[in-house]
Amino acid sequence: MTLPDPKLLANIRVVLTRTSHPGNIGAAARAMKTMGLSQLYLVDPAIFPNSQADAMASGATDLLAQTRVCATLAEALADTTLALGVSARRRDIVAEVLTPPEASARLLADAQTAPVALVFGNETSGLSNEELSLCQGLVTIPANPDYSSLNLAAAVQVLCYEVRQAWLGRGSWPQPEMDAASGDEVEKFYAHLETALAELEFLNPGSPGKLMLKLRRLFARTRLAKEEVNILRGILTAAQEAKAAARQTGTAAHNS
Amino acid sequence: MTLPDPKLLANIRVVLTRTSHPGNIGAAARAMKTMGLSQLYLVDPAIFPNSQADAMASGATDLLAQTRVCATLAEALADTTLALGVSARRRDIVAEVLTPPEASARLLADAQTAPVALVFGNETSGLSNEELSLCQGLVTIPANPDYSSLNLAAAVQVLCYEVRQAWLGRGSWPQPEMDAASGDEVEKFYAHLETALAELEFLNPGSPGKLMLKLRRLFARTRLAKEEVNILRGILTAAQEAKAAARQTGTAAHNS
Repeated sequence: MTLPDPKLLANIRVVLTRTSHPGNIGAAARAMKTMGLSQLYLVDPAIFPNSQADAMASGATDLLAQTRVCATLAEALADTTLALGVSARRRDIVAEVLTPPEASARLLADAQTAPVALVFGNETSGLSNEELSLCQGLVTIPANPDYSSLNLAAAVQVLCYEVRQAWLGRGSWPQPEMDAASGDEVEKFYAHLETALAELEFLNPGSPGKLMLKLRRLFARTRLAKEEVNILRGILTAAQEAKAAARQTGTAAHNS
Repeated sequence: MTLPDPKLLANIRVVLTRTSHPGNIGAAARAMKTMGLSQLYLVDPAIFPNSQADAMASGATDLLAQTRVCATLAEALADTTLALGVSARRRDIVAEVLTPPEASARLLADAQTAPVALVFGNETSGLSNEELSLCQGLVTIPANPDYSSLNLAAAVQVLCYEVRQAWLGRGSWPQPEMDAASGDEVEKFYAHLETALAELEFLNPGSPGKLMLKLRRLFARTRLAKEEVNILRGILTAAQEAKAAARQTGTAAHNS
């Protein structure tokens, strides 16, 4: 039996944010390797590297050795075109809630052209709203409604298992419908948006409140294309120029 | 959403044989409970009960409290009509190798009428040939051929996840084709077979070699019905009586 293209699996990264127990990092690495995934990213882990992580990784310490440790989730997702957050609970923060097979098909489709990510939150608190706002979709493992608390590495195992089954089941996936913006491009857009809104005095930089979070939710649902980001940023620039001109005129008027 | 009949999941037990690390027992209990399974059987565990098992079980310590500890695998399977062994490697010991979804459908079909089991071996050595000979089929999790070593609790999680997905996907399963013999009935048949073969001097009780194991493999493949066990045992009894009569005649002849 010839296996499908291994590059697809190499483009699917697992991102663990704010992991408390190093043993879970090792166990997650082992779970990934059994399913042929290799790209492990850690965001602000409590303890890493660590001997407990090595012990739990068993034969997957090579993944730990090449793990990328990032300060922020945005950094871990900077070059990705699709990030799916894994969460036990439905939340209103993103529109789409995918099953593991649906998520796997989506990830493999995008992995043909760019890196994609499965994002797992802290063992106790899960993904924060801020972290979810960086994801374009939510994956939920259908579980016992009376006790849905999978161990972190167990959740990684189930998702990586489904990714592998989808990968084994089909040699190719439909091309992504659009040229999706990368996480980095989208983050630059949000930064631009925040600056522009402050300049427009629509947002108070001293107390931005939930405005930016709400705007992130809105755009996260749509999965922005590169072209759309360029258009939106063009509009922002035009608004900024208008405001600057208005200020100049206003100043001029005051001074006149 | 109304869920399918919970009795089906209550009829599917997880049997862990010769588990070395009590933490894995607790983690397996947690994995089971997240998927709605509750019947955990332990065969000759190294250490149980244990505080590490409780810690890893997290919110599933209720499963540990009602866990059945058995001396032998045959005891754990005595009332089951179907036992599937989970193994990373293909072996020649049983004919059928099922994928996790295939195994789940099979287990749920039989669970309508009797207890069934998923059997997991020791962390390092897996299931022994003797243990596999008590199973009617083998389940293999499709994994990375270069590193297929799933953690025990991770394998339990994947299988229980697939059982739950199959359970959620369909409210009912076809009735089992036949009135399957229970594990206990089949074991009694094997004991009868061994006794009869010894009496027939076909088998040397001092060195049975691989004969009984080969016969077990043969019958394990077929999944014996209750009626078939009765027929086979009737044949054995007839053979035993014939041999006894022959011996009597022989003795009589010598004595005459």
